[in-house]
Amino acid sequence: MQAVGIIAEYNPFHNGHAYQIRQAKQQTGADAVVVAMSGNWVQRGEPALLDKWQRARTALAGGADLVVELPTASAIQPADLFARGGVAILAALQCHWLAFGTEHPGMDYRRLMDHLPTDPATFKRFDQTYASLFQGYLREQTGIMLNSGNDILGFFYALANRRAGNHLSLVPLARKGSDHNDSTIVAGTDFASATAIRQAILAGDLAQIARVVPAATLAALRQGPLVDWEQLWPQLRYLLMTSAPTDLAKMYQITEGVEYRLKRAAVKSSSFTDFMQAVKTKRYTYTRLQRQASYLYNQAHPTEMQQQPQYLRVLGYSAAGQQYLHAIKKTVEWPLVSRADREWQRGEGALDVRVGQLRTLLTGIPQDDGRIPIKLSDSE
Amino acid sequence: MQAVGIIAEYNPFHNGHAYQIRQAKQQTGADAVVVAMSGNWVQRGEPALLDKWQRARTALAGGADLVVELPTASAIQPADLFARGGVAILAALQCHWLAFGTEHPGMDYRRLMDHLPTDPATFKRFDQTYASLFQGYLREQTGIMLNSGNDILGFFYALANRRAGNHLSLVPLARKGSDHNDSTIVAGTDFASATAIRQAILAGDLAQIARVVPAATLAALRQGPLVDWEQLWPQLRYLLMTSAPTDLAKMYQITEGVEYRLKRAAVKSSSFTDFMQAVKTKRYTYTRLQRQASYLYNQAHPTEMQQQPQYLRVLGYSAAGQQYLHAIKKTVEWPLVSRADREWQRGEGALDVRVGQLRTLLTGIPQDDGRIPIKLSDSE
Repeated sequence: MQAVGIIAEYNPFHNGHAYQIRQAKQQTGADAVVVAMSGNWVQRGEPALLDKWQRARTALAGGADLVVELPTASAIQPADLFARGGVAILAALQCHWLAFGTEHPGMDYRRLMDHLPTDPATFKRFDQTYASLFQGYLREQTGIMLNSGNDILGFFYALANRRAGNHLSLVPLARKGSDHNDSTIVAGTDFASATAIRQAILAGDLAQIARVVPAATLAALRQGPLVDWEQLWPQLRYLLMTSAPTDLAKMYQITEGVEYRLKRAAVKSSSFTDFMQAVKTKRYTYTRLQRQASYLYNQAHPTEMQQQPQYLRVLGYSAAGQQYLHAIKKTVEWPLVSRADREWQRGEGALDVRVGQLRTLLTGIPQDDGRIPIKLSDSE
Repeated sequence: MQAVGIIAEYNPFHNGHAYQIRQAKQQTGADAVVVAMSGNWVQRGEPALLDKWQRARTALAGGADLVVELPTASAIQPADLFARGGVAILAALQCHWLAFGTEHPGMDYRRLMDHLPTDPATFKRFDQTYASLFQGYLREQTGIMLNSGNDILGFFYALANRRAGNHLSLVPLARKGSDHNDSTIVAGTDFASATAIRQAILAGDLAQIARVVPAATLAALRQGPLVDWEQLWPQLRYLLMTSAPTDLAKMYQITEGVEYRLKRAAVKSSSFTDFMQAVKTKRYTYTRLQRQASYLYNQAHPTEMQQQPQYLRVLGYSAAGQQYLHAIKKTVEWPLVSRADREWQRGEGALDVRVGQLRTLLTGIPQDDGRIPIKLSDSE
């Protein structure tokens, strides 16, 4: 059996994602589609609207065969580290291909990679992310512009794959429908960006999204519970108000005195939206600040976020996914975590488990303890 | 003008407190009654039901002339440090007497103090508080039993006063009515313990307490908002769940690995009551655990709790209190803080201000910023 891998967030799973899965299968002829999916937090530093189990279920219903969690230490990261984590999981799961959506399927990744910067000083500017410095550098060197978020991710997938030993064959797929960052659902089409869909959901406009997501997603969104930053704000606010600046500065990526700024803003902000507005400056991107907020919320220490997790937390599978797991099980080098036993919970899985327990505080739905992979029956 | 001082919590202010104020004035002939009162947290490690301003108002209505806050660093402490903080404030305010309630007004404090332990090793047993070791030692040496909480406090007042240079004359007053720890309101009497009154309030039984508190207290309790541990539990639970054990162990009095026990209990406890039940062992008294919980809730560091605050935070005064303040103002050595200016908020007052901001999160009522002393008009 051969599998094609996809790195995804599915926040939430929509028609464009289902289309991508079909395309990936068609173009590769793979027997199974394996997805490395962010857990309860996504790359931009936001809690996922639906939890990892709810989203895994919608992915399986939408054609995925095996869904494995992208651990928190890889998920809430800039593009380069997010890509590295996803590629590592798909390689560990012995995928043959890595399929990913892009606005420019003809992108010359080889040329880009032949011009990688070698001088580490290239990346020492305080006011830009590693990704955007990379992007600027490559543009100077090659004339190729990595404009969209998907192109940047695609490039980092290619780079991570090369650095890990080129285990995966890259399959760039032309994206269907609206741009990743389009913020509205365009009338008369079945496709919309996850961003646009999230905005419609948070505005309470579920009717509008019925057209652009599969039935399973709509049902899950209707059932909820949905989690967003506003629900977490009272806890983060309390933490920021009580913690000494020196204690905040011990958390991952809390640098350059931003802790004082965050503390001051917390006292006067009664919502997360107000808070983000109060802390935003030209110096920091919104996403960077939101990721910092997520590290603080979860009290994520550098040692936790800098680890490169080597486990495969199985969230669910179809019949084909189960066969695939069976086929590779004897040669997989990382542990397959189908049940979160005590040892894993206290060891490698500690950060994911903590993040899950915090979600449970809000939703009442356990995330690891006692949970077993979702098995999609053929009738579903 | 001469003043008699009282150290109090007034949680809440009841008929016994009003009686004590009258007694103190009568027995001493003082012109003013000065009260050092716990702020938003009380000695047992609980949030005060009513905030410091609400309680100061009831104290003034009940006969006090000047109410000054006993800072958090002195208030949430075992009896010896609580007494030291209160005595220091009353001495700084140039009180002539210190009046306090006791079950045994004839207690021989001199004899007790002539038998103080000199060997520090006397106090190095892990399983007992300093106060209870002291108590046991003195009983062995003198045969005098310090049985009740009030007798123990009285002894520590005497001790703190002696160590500070005997600035205050001690006036032990026989307590009126029910024992400090009596947990019920006895029918047919106008007096009940604060403990019994709190239990009746938390049980929603305001009618029952109308007999045993002055009208001002009843009105304040009716108006609220009242704060108890259960309302703080979601925040403390979140903090315990997210914090690394090593970070918890940096807080004041978190020792001997209790941080692991607290973390484990937090995950499974959906209420503060459950939590306390889960962590209670023979090794720790309930009060000690509750104080530890309060240090964690407020993220109080050892450097903050070990300071001996030297400021006089004025919460309110009567006409006589105002005259007294005027009379001593030129010779008082500690700053009189009537308005919480920025410098004080960031400096010496930081812990009290933070504690107040956390209360504001729950109640919406500012505690320091912009607050000025309550002035009781003669008509009240």
